[in-house]
Amino acid sequence: MKTDIQIAQEAKMKPIMDIAQDVGISEEEVELYGKYKAKVNLSIWDRLKDKADGKLVLVTAINPTPAGEGKSTTTVGLGQALARLGKRSAIALREPSLGPVFGIKGGAAGGGYAQVVPMEDINLHFTGDMHAITTANNLLSAAIDNHITQGNALGIDMRQIVWKRVMDMNDRALREVVVGLGGKANGFVRQDGFMITVASEIMAILCLSTGMMDLKDRLSRIIIGYNYENKPVTAGDLKVHGAMALLLKDAIKPNLVQTLENTPSFIHGGPFANIAHGCNSIMATKLGLKLVDYLITEAGFGADLGAEKFMDIKCRYAGIAPSAVVIVATVRALKMHGGVKKTDLGQENVPALEKGFENLKKHIENINKFGVPVVVAMNKFITDTEAELAKLTDLCRIQGVEASICEVWEKGGEGGEDLASKVVEACEKESNFKLLYDANESIKDKIGKIAKEIYGAKGVQYTGKAEKEIKLLEDLGLDKYPICMAKTQYSLSDNPDLVGRPEGFEITVKEVRVSAGAGFIVALTGDIMVMPGLPKIPSAEKIDIDEKGVITGLF
Amino acid sequence: MKTDIQIAQEAKMKPIMDIAQDVGISEEEVELYGKYKAKVNLSIWDRLKDKADGKLVLVTAINPTPAGEGKSTTTVGLGQALARLGKRSAIALREPSLGPVFGIKGGAAGGGYAQVVPMEDINLHFTGDMHAITTANNLLSAAIDNHITQGNALGIDMRQIVWKRVMDMNDRALREVVVGLGGKANGFVRQDGFMITVASEIMAILCLSTGMMDLKDRLSRIIIGYNYENKPVTAGDLKVHGAMALLLKDAIKPNLVQTLENTPSFIHGGPFANIAHGCNSIMATKLGLKLVDYLITEAGFGADLGAEKFMDIKCRYAGIAPSAVVIVATVRALKMHGGVKKTDLGQENVPALEKGFENLKKHIENINKFGVPVVVAMNKFITDTEAELAKLTDLCRIQGVEASICEVWEKGGEGGEDLASKVVEACEKESNFKLLYDANESIKDKIGKIAKEIYGAKGVQYTGKAEKEIKLLEDLGLDKYPICMAKTQYSLSDNPDLVGRPEGFEITVKEVRVSAGAGFIVALTGDIMVMPGLPKIPSAEKIDIDEKGVITGLF
Repeated sequence: MKTDIQIAQEAKMKPIMDIAQDVGISEEEVELYGKYKAKVNLSIWDRLKDKADGKLVLVTAINPTPAGEGKSTTTVGLGQALARLGKRSAIALREPSLGPVFGIKGGAAGGGYAQVVPMEDINLHFTGDMHAITTANNLLSAAIDNHITQGNALGIDMRQIVWKRVMDMNDRALREVVVGLGGKANGFVRQDGFMITVASEIMAILCLSTGMMDLKDRLSRIIIGYNYENKPVTAGDLKVHGAMALLLKDAIKPNLVQTLENTPSFIHGGPFANIAHGCNSIMATKLGLKLVDYLITEAGFGADLGAEKFMDIKCRYAGIAPSAVVIVATVRALKMHGGVKKTDLGQENVPALEKGFENLKKHIENINKFGVPVVVAMNKFITDTEAELAKLTDLCRIQGVEASICEVWEKGGEGGEDLASKVVEACEKESNFKLLYDANESIKDKIGKIAKEIYGAKGVQYTGKAEKEIKLLEDLGLDKYPICMAKTQYSLSDNPDLVGRPEGFEITVKEVRVSAGAGFIVALTGDIMVMPGLPKIPSAEKIDIDEKGVITGLF
Repeated sequence: MKTDIQIAQEAKMKPIMDIAQDVGISEEEVELYGKYKAKVNLSIWDRLKDKADGKLVLVTAINPTPAGEGKSTTTVGLGQALARLGKRSAIALREPSLGPVFGIKGGAAGGGYAQVVPMEDINLHFTGDMHAITTANNLLSAAIDNHITQGNALGIDMRQIVWKRVMDMNDRALREVVVGLGGKANGFVRQDGFMITVASEIMAILCLSTGMMDLKDRLSRIIIGYNYENKPVTAGDLKVHGAMALLLKDAIKPNLVQTLENTPSFIHGGPFANIAHGCNSIMATKLGLKLVDYLITEAGFGADLGAEKFMDIKCRYAGIAPSAVVIVATVRALKMHGGVKKTDLGQENVPALEKGFENLKKHIENINKFGVPVVVAMNKFITDTEAELAKLTDLCRIQGVEASICEVWEKGGEGGEDLASKVVEACEKESNFKLLYDANESIKDKIGKIAKEIYGAKGVQYTGKAEKEIKLLEDLGLDKYPICMAKTQYSLSDNPDLVGRPEGFEITVKEVRVSAGAGFIVALTGDIMVMPGLPKIPSAEKIDIDEKGVITGLF
């Protein structure tokens, strides 16, 4: 069997200028990065702003299990399949982080015959967006320490600095550091830490901005810490938001690549799906909607986190609404939700499937609460039996939802034609999109609605720390933002072991932070790892490039 | 008077593809980065390798003073002037570092009407080379700490790690840090520090590599520290040199831009001129030599550091030789070397000029030792008097050297036509290029030759530390590399206050290190700042970008 990179390297890519022109982007609006990557100039908005939008389709999933679901693969394959049906389609995906490539993870650009290419570039430096974000983030850090060293006119309380440095690297040694050592010339000593770049609030800001001025405004609102009167100090107070915006002048432009079947693909921005909202940029999604009839996009993690934030954060800020939602599930994963161990997944087990279906059912109910039609994509594995697939189809139908067997990993767009037809039908249905809550509600009301209506919790507990933080945000008038839940992706609850559809549980909010630049309040129900480490034998040891430029060991 | 960025933004740039084709690079060999920047694919070597080289012209300078000399400006202007004379010419320059842009420095791409463009891009992320080097450097750091955490099979002595992390930022708080805090999950606590990216040995390696395999070999030879038996541990021992090379797969390709007058310009690599050799990449220089009849390049700092290292390090490794050397001087700077204060430079002072000429004279003598013809470029300032310029011309003539009044800053190529003619003549003269020393000589012999023959010192002192380090390198068989002197740029001696032509002095070598990947031994005569800080009011506070993309406050 061929590996992803082998398939990718055999791809017949079209020059990206041709892809651009096919999708309606003019030559002057394209900035080439080699032959197969491009950025789209923001000047395109002047031309397109009054054009009607196409249909927006969100691909999300059940709560992930070690059995795998294939959400990005389905997104890519669905875009390819729609094109095969003669529909003008494109996809919008998050761009992957570089650091994890040298750890254990494979590529983040789909898989099999449903990939975006050139995948090695997309997974390495790509068009430099991550590096621009890293630099803007660390310029702000340098400005903070410099301001203090130069006299601290703003009265920044060094014990209350919340802004961290970032690096696009898996480097556990940087999680907790002390900076400013070495005496007077090097400034004041203080504790700091590095996060991986995608965890930077600037990534979330880039993805939620609707243009350069909005970007700059959001950057200026970033709270870097608090002064001795416990009032927020912002990037705007330090006067570096203009320079940060300049560093992001190219990063803000959506990237254009293609799938293995030459479907236009906007890969732009990739914020964390826990402490941030986990969706590609608003700029890319809105651009795609102006250019094609069907724009397929995805959101990170399962639907309880990804779809909810897609609706309540991204769609709220962008003023857009999905016409249909695809929930990806697999027989194997549902059997795990039904209690089957990973080693026993090869055996037919219809009762376990039926039990595990409760997880999918809850996600279908949740999407219905947003008023959007649902289609289920059953990603087929070789061990799935006819009986299992038939049962799953029936169970979906009972919920009023069409299910489609999806084989895009193995067959590319061809393997997703049935899914594509069902998505087109769903998009014709009436959609009554509504948000789950009003941003002006209290923080606890907003969290409560998400926990009860989406997770199925009976209530929410708050630690003393979280209570204090909520009070502070209310006092500062920083409580009117949408909520960004940071919760385990493996369960509808905040306990990763509770698979299926847990009931009667409470979730515990341990910490509440504001990302005032991005414009959301992060509610943490557990510890979130914002800087990964490398494993015992990192991929970096196997990766190589030869004199002909042939890459090995990558994915 | 227009600022550099105003002049740059008014430039009539040609599409870079046209520039490429004019200079003999085919469309398939070009990788576009937008319309005005490109990388040249290494595949071009297969086509050009047997072609004869053009003439190589090095632009260097007297010891710099606060009065300014304009070396990069002269390099750019000379390239433009040669084109005006109908010569096929190109320039090769170092690429600037991003960090200092937010501090106090202006652009590093020439000035006035002798600039390379698009200068704002060149001074910001450009084609991502710096970010690639940062990432490769920090991947090695992460691999070091991870190796120790995962059991330390190589027995790396944490007290003897010499490899530092880097960031392309002026950030004094990162000069000395402690990493690995926070307990077992975060690894072992140790002291570390960040340098600015251009100080990374990887930058020097990139610039001295002759191809991808040579790059990878050099990366594998990097000494990251020593084990408990005091033996070197290398990047190759950690098995990450392949992954590091992959990260540099695009960075290794020379960048192509243009001057204000559309002269092809290879801007590639920019190592420090103290702890490294301060020249653009061998790849860019050799490529330019294959493509044009006159390739103009420069080296960092004055001729005592820049030109000496250009010859003894870069030319040695590249197997190339300059046909002529241009030494840039100004009347103002020579008057400062003659003892005039900066505030008094506006007044005519021929005796001081004559006294200060001793500095230039020594540099002329030095270049003659390398067997290469010299031309002096007198960069004209408005305060220069006829008497001063005539005296300087005479003084040069007595040394057997032509001097030319150069007005490229004000007039572009037109202002350098006389200089260009004299350079063409010099290139026709016999050149008997020879290196100053044999790399197989002892470390002290090599340092002694540089100090005595180039600096004019009567001898060299070594601290106890330096003596010990030399002994260690000899014991390890790491003493057969050329020497990279790290000395003040302001004086021929190691004392920045000794302007003019000091005599009877000794220099003191305080520290000796090996950069085994780059392939040189660094001899430090003082403290070298490898991580700058930001000033009280950094440029970052004035820099801005508006909704039309217009940049202000930059340069």
